[in-house]
Amino acid sequence: MNVAILGYGTVGSGVFDVLTENHDIIAKRVGKSVDIKYVLDLREFPGDKVESVLVHDYKTIMADPDVDIVVEVMGGLHPAYEFTKEALEKGIAVCTSNKELVAKHGAEFIELAKSKNTNYLFEASVGGGIPIIRQLIRSITADEVEAINGILNGTTNYMMTEMREKGVSFEDCLKDAQAKGFAERNPAADIEGHDACRKIAILTSLAYGQQVDFEDIYTEGITGITSEDVLYAKELGRGIKLLGSSYMKDGKVYAMVAPKMVEQTNPLYPVNGVFNAILLRGNMLDEVMCYGKGAGKLPTASAVVSDVIDAAKHINTFIPVLWDKNKMELGKKDDMTCKFFVRVAKEDEAAANAAFGNISIVRVAELDKEIGFVTEEMSEAKYDACASKVNVINRIRLM
Amino acid sequence: MNVAILGYGTVGSGVFDVLTENHDIIAKRVGKSVDIKYVLDLREFPGDKVESVLVHDYKTIMADPDVDIVVEVMGGLHPAYEFTKEALEKGIAVCTSNKELVAKHGAEFIELAKSKNTNYLFEASVGGGIPIIRQLIRSITADEVEAINGILNGTTNYMMTEMREKGVSFEDCLKDAQAKGFAERNPAADIEGHDACRKIAILTSLAYGQQVDFEDIYTEGITGITSEDVLYAKELGRGIKLLGSSYMKDGKVYAMVAPKMVEQTNPLYPVNGVFNAILLRGNMLDEVMCYGKGAGKLPTASAVVSDVIDAAKHINTFIPVLWDKNKMELGKKDDMTCKFFVRVAKEDEAAANAAFGNISIVRVAELDKEIGFVTEEMSEAKYDACASKVNVINRIRLM
Repeated sequence: MNVAILGYGTVGSGVFDVLTENHDIIAKRVGKSVDIKYVLDLREFPGDKVESVLVHDYKTIMADPDVDIVVEVMGGLHPAYEFTKEALEKGIAVCTSNKELVAKHGAEFIELAKSKNTNYLFEASVGGGIPIIRQLIRSITADEVEAINGILNGTTNYMMTEMREKGVSFEDCLKDAQAKGFAERNPAADIEGHDACRKIAILTSLAYGQQVDFEDIYTEGITGITSEDVLYAKELGRGIKLLGSSYMKDGKVYAMVAPKMVEQTNPLYPVNGVFNAILLRGNMLDEVMCYGKGAGKLPTASAVVSDVIDAAKHINTFIPVLWDKNKMELGKKDDMTCKFFVRVAKEDEAAANAAFGNISIVRVAELDKEIGFVTEEMSEAKYDACASKVNVINRIRLM
Repeated sequence: MNVAILGYGTVGSGVFDVLTENHDIIAKRVGKSVDIKYVLDLREFPGDKVESVLVHDYKTIMADPDVDIVVEVMGGLHPAYEFTKEALEKGIAVCTSNKELVAKHGAEFIELAKSKNTNYLFEASVGGGIPIIRQLIRSITADEVEAINGILNGTTNYMMTEMREKGVSFEDCLKDAQAKGFAERNPAADIEGHDACRKIAILTSLAYGQQVDFEDIYTEGITGITSEDVLYAKELGRGIKLLGSSYMKDGKVYAMVAPKMVEQTNPLYPVNGVFNAILLRGNMLDEVMCYGKGAGKLPTASAVVSDVIDAAKHINTFIPVLWDKNKMELGKKDDMTCKFFVRVAKEDEAAANAAFGNISIVRVAELDKEIGFVTEEMSEAKYDACASKVNVINRIRLM
């Protein structure tokens, strides 16, 4: 079996390492040797072990009839889209960690793979090393999925953990995370929730077998979370986590990305630092959670290589997966319901009571100029209506 | 597709319910309807929905050429062994939750299934609703498994949680668990660790592709754990969990079942009550944990039915799984290493110091007649030698 790796960045070099270091055990599991024939990258890597297989032109790989599997770990939409399409059209299996491409074109590529008796596999696109895609589509098969709640982004979870443990501001926390290499110089994709949004779009598409467009998912990042919010969360015995969530209610699927206050008894509560976890609820299974490293060179590469192994065991055989490319109409954000934690100035307590009705007050000693409260469960629309009657300092949803 | 369910007990009736209630979504995922043609049970169930498909003689099922899949949820070794063998020999797939049978005859049945182009599937035999078997053999495929640590028995985890939260004695806790139906009238299989032992034997066999006999695994239950031990665990910031563990070191595989003091930062620490969780460490993946309901009618049935779906999608096709029936020689218990928590009488402090060398003392205010201490990491053999020189009240391993 011959593999071509597109991109020799963090994940690509990790895939190279996993295929090399675990070569023998992989050969045993596949039933034949799996070897790296090409690595495509525009750059040169003088003296690196990759040199003997490095090529700069994708045509070289596509012209070689001995390539069985392409690993696309370039990231971005182009030319990853064109390269993937060309490989699948030739019947070559493609394994990827590229969540943008999967969220946007996953259904299309699955259809193409099916028509060519090959496979488009993307375990590493969500949850890094956590095998959540297989769990969802090949294990939780006897259940109707009722809800998915995931800590899907390690950077923001690291930041939320640091803010809680060190009591630092969002800005200081971000600077520190960037200095340590846990956050990118341009951190928008993480802290604005876009990364988590693409991942929950993929998981929701697979759970319900139909395309969910990430553009349709209401997405709120963690940029609005302050150290005051963290104090209230502690007082409530809760932790703030950026969650990608979706659920089915009365035949409609709803999805959202937002920071939420998670209670201590929830299995997601102790998931800290750069770890990710995905909690699924099935109508028979109840809750099952998968936890692990959501990013990192080798964990992500391990997930990619598990797909390479699947692809190698299914040459010329499409592994069934339901992902209809006709777009699903999500339920309206206005109709989604939860309890809200809300902060107002101390003098607005009466107004808050009047606006929201039945509320439970929370006070934090350090914050004597304001009060916090938790509302009853209500729709987003009702919350907006109530909140328009009082001056809200901040609000965070409860899970 | 026609299914015959052997046994209409808790799991069997759960399988009936899952196949009935989720009939349409299962049909969509399989690509055809999956129906219950027979339920085998010696008992009568007057007025129950099972009546129209109930039979009392296995011959009826084996004589019907339209049966595609047998679900064996009878438990026990006989006649489950004979029934399974007969079905597989006819090329009929068998799905089971029977951990005793899988631990004892799994490798044999897989070989038989392979030779008949059919499948022997057993997702529900470990971890109830948690899809740990598939995770281990179909997802964590790019890694060498370095270690498995699992909370594999819900009854004992419930008891450990209750002892910690309510400060009750082991005996009172057991009576309470029996009264609530969480522990059996004859609780030995759970509290002596035999159930966890069979499960870690299955997981270890699959992780290393070779038969591990459960009789070879050193097994210690929770019957020796006292409320005093729980006080020390709290003082140490640890929790006591009954763990099924195995790991590979220098090419040898070691396995053990024993209560261990787990530290707060370990993802197994917050796993409480009847929940189960399995923490795997791969050489590339680092740690991944799967958490969920380890028992219960519908979660276990959901796992069985996920196997039924796999079997239905692979009629006449063996799904590869490595489990060589030649027995693996485990590493010696004497060579296994860990830190130990040890309790001795107050007047034995000097003797303990002399016997164990470098120890860290732990004191609990309520227990002023004794001291606790934690040893350095040492082998079981060395521990036994040291402990023979001093009067040990109790000892618990650390993880």
